[in-house]
Amino acid sequence: MMTSVLSRPHLLSMKQLEAEQIFHLFDLADQMKNNLYLPMSRQTFAANVFLEPSTRTKMSFQVAERKLGLETMNLDGESSSFTKGESLYDTLKTLEAIGVEVAVVRQSEIGLLDECKDLNLSLINAGDGCGEHPTQSLLDLYTIYEHFHSFHGLKVAIAGDLKHSRVARSNAHALEKLGAHVSFVTPPDWQDPSLTDEYVTMDEAVEQCDVIMLLRIQHERHLHSTSQMDYLENYGLTKEREARMHPNAIILHPAPVNRGVEIDSDLVESPKSRIFRQMTNGVTIRMAIIEALLKGEL
Amino acid sequence: MMTSVLSRPHLLSMKQLEAEQIFHLFDLADQMKNNLYLPMSRQTFAANVFLEPSTRTKMSFQVAERKLGLETMNLDGESSSFTKGESLYDTLKTLEAIGVEVAVVRQSEIGLLDECKDLNLSLINAGDGCGEHPTQSLLDLYTIYEHFHSFHGLKVAIAGDLKHSRVARSNAHALEKLGAHVSFVTPPDWQDPSLTDEYVTMDEAVEQCDVIMLLRIQHERHLHSTSQMDYLENYGLTKEREARMHPNAIILHPAPVNRGVEIDSDLVESPKSRIFRQMTNGVTIRMAIIEALLKGEL
Amino acid sequence: MMTSVLSRPHLLSMKQLEAEQIFHLFDLADQMKNNLYLPMSRQTFAANVFLEPSTRTKMSFQVAERKLGLETMNLDGESSSFTKGESLYDTLKTLEAIGVEVAVVRQSEIGLLDECKDLNLSLINAGDGCGEHPTQSLLDLYTIYEHFHSFHGLKVAIAGDLKHSRVARSNAHALEKLGAHVSFVTPPDWQDPSLTDEYVTMDEAVEQCDVIMLLRIQHERHLHSTSQMDYLENYGLTKEREARMHPNAIILHPAPVNRGVEIDSDLVESPKSRIFRQMTNGVTIRMAIIEALLKGEL
Repeated sequence: MMTSVLSRPHLLSMKQLEAEQIFHLFDLADQMKNNLYLPMSRQTFAANVFLEPSTRTKMSFQVAERKLGLETMNLDGESSSFTKGESLYDTLKTLEAIGVEVAVVRQSEIGLLDECKDLNLSLINAGDGCGEHPTQSLLDLYTIYEHFHSFHGLKVAIAGDLKHSRVARSNAHALEKLGAHVSFVTPPDWQDPSLTDEYVTMDEAVEQCDVIMLLRIQHERHLHSTSQMDYLENYGLTKEREARMHPNAIILHPAPVNRGVEIDSDLVESPKSRIFRQMTNGVTIRMAIIEALLKGEL
Repeated sequence: MMTSVLSRPHLLSMKQLEAEQIFHLFDLADQMKNNLYLPMSRQTFAANVFLEPSTRTKMSFQVAERKLGLETMNLDGESSSFTKGESLYDTLKTLEAIGVEVAVVRQSEIGLLDECKDLNLSLINAGDGCGEHPTQSLLDLYTIYEHFHSFHGLKVAIAGDLKHSRVARSNAHALEKLGAHVSFVTPPDWQDPSLTDEYVTMDEAVEQCDVIMLLRIQHERHLHSTSQMDYLENYGLTKEREARMHPNAIILHPAPVNRGVEIDSDLVESPKSRIFRQMTNGVTIRMAIIEALLKGEL
Repeated sequence: MMTSVLSRPHLLSMKQLEAEQIFHLFDLADQMKNNLYLPMSRQTFAANVFLEPSTRTKMSFQVAERKLGLETMNLDGESSSFTKGESLYDTLKTLEAIGVEVAVVRQSEIGLLDECKDLNLSLINAGDGCGEHPTQSLLDLYTIYEHFHSFHGLKVAIAGDLKHSRVARSNAHALEKLGAHVSFVTPPDWQDPSLTDEYVTMDEAVEQCDVIMLLRIQHERHLHSTSQMDYLENYGLTKEREARMHPNAIILHPAPVNRGVEIDSDLVESPKSRIFRQMTNGVTIRMAIIEALLKGEL
């Protein structure tokens, strides 16, 4: 009773998922979408621990949890014992002790959650700084799959600040595991030496690719070096470029969008855009993830 | 699916409501008060988006939503993507995408919600700076109606900082639409040129009126120009003045009260005061408003 | 209807509880632990008003409330009307007006809650600065009782900053009321003249006592005067000292723990430690407390 005897399954990184596990989550998500699931029959507590600001990820998890019938609790950085210097491990150990079974965690230190894997509650990495954000990857992949029904031979361009993006690397690895071909669009100083795939221009990308996956420019860090308009013209998705995309191609962006920087503002809600569809799918795939973790299927 | 096809009803301003719609809300509120309604049969999500501090309005909406059987989510300014510069439109569009059907919004920019009217979720304006606060108006009106059962010929004095009060203007217009006669009590430099009604002294108001509707003095802006005691003596409701009110007259205040400034502290919980009754009625009328919006009756 | 007619029971201080009331709460807690209770049959609202940071107490109350079937609301200092200068009384009166029946309050002013006792909602003191924290005391006592099944003749050492600890004084009085013998371990300048019990060294304590109850060192105030390592060596629970404890003795700490200051980090999850068990019991005893207050049994 004093210490945990069971180790629970976690979702910490895209790397832990085999292709068949990803498709299993998609199947589960399709059931969630069509309301073919039963909510929890017993009271189950989930805690959303967000030590960095978030709107859509936090809200998305809350909706997913409530739709599954879970009790949700929210723990933000500024009003908690983190201000007293308590470690993440001790905080999660506390949540375990009071009966929490799923903890969704956003914080800024890569790998910190790995130290908490032996706790008797399932951990979901909701973004660890420049590291991983696997539920964002899965909602991106699910949105692509919903449209194309397969990844085989699909051409995907990932455009933006590759060096600092937690989403870019996870998505590139997962897409190639699933059979897609990935290329990258980025200014020279934002290239990531660990990504060995092909670099292309945005003009090449819109003409060759089925999916343009835009990343968010982190204003705080970068806008002193590159002005917004210059970025859009040189590396972003302008209306002129969008007109040259394949008729069946789609546009993704994890949001929040810097309208007029990564993408022309008018394209955010255009027919090819799946930006808000991604958010809808985010709820669905997170329901699938939580369900799979609680059932021990991951 | 990508863009909204339905426009939902909103409550953004008192101006949008005809007298008969106001009375319909009162009827609905009476049913809520007597538990003559059925909670939601399906899971419905409401989001409370409060970008400015609030105790009673936010809590009141939360209670109203839970009593109706809604799932509630809270989004405050400091822990959300607003800190990343995301617009209100994109935030509400996100809430729409993740399945929210009602969004209660407090923020400081007049008219900003009007830009969000085409979203497929019902918006409730919970205060937009110096602009409107229609649910506060409706709870004031409902509290008057509960006591007098009619507005016809009723004399109402509104006292306080008319220039900066969102409540004063809405209430004045609505009360006159419903058949009441409105006068104002205020220091000369807080008069609002757009309000053409009669100005009176507080001494005249207590002797003539059925309702004394006090406004909150915004400390931050004004107390350098007028000291607290001076304000109470010259423009506030002292115990001496209260003794001269009609036996059946009542006192309203939207709270939080500056005890000893707008009103003598001892009068806050006195028999004529409806200040805490207003809060109780606030839950009831907000239940009615949400119900009417979800049923498409507004 | 305008003013409260009933006074509700509160839990403000350990002093208000007789020994038999404490054992009644333990009985109730045992029922909670074994799921031998029925959740609320009607919708009941609880508000958690935390004006100072807290992780475990706030989360613990939330879980307790949800397990009892209550609707919970959270009101933190920074996003509420406290920033407009509203008093605690007026805030709690507002909660009463909107239908809240139980308010859990953490704030920093000793005795402030006493001014709110006539409100028609049950108040639970969740820590008032250097004053009382009765639900922490009760979870400590319940954890001791769970292990020893009696307090009679039990030897308990309380170690730490006695002068500033709200837990130390409450626990000492309650333990002696229940039949235990209390001694204290503390540096000379942290002794509390109002505590007349015996002072011992930590070496004496580990050899004599059944329970070592450690207190948290308040970093902010004290660490300029005493270095961390010095404190552990002179007054803390080292591994060497733990090895000299009775085989059946246990270690308590209210958490968050300063690992390596009050206690060697390795001992936090050791077999004698009840630190995380205390948190589990905190949910259970808080369920019992809320239930007893709502039933009028306290």
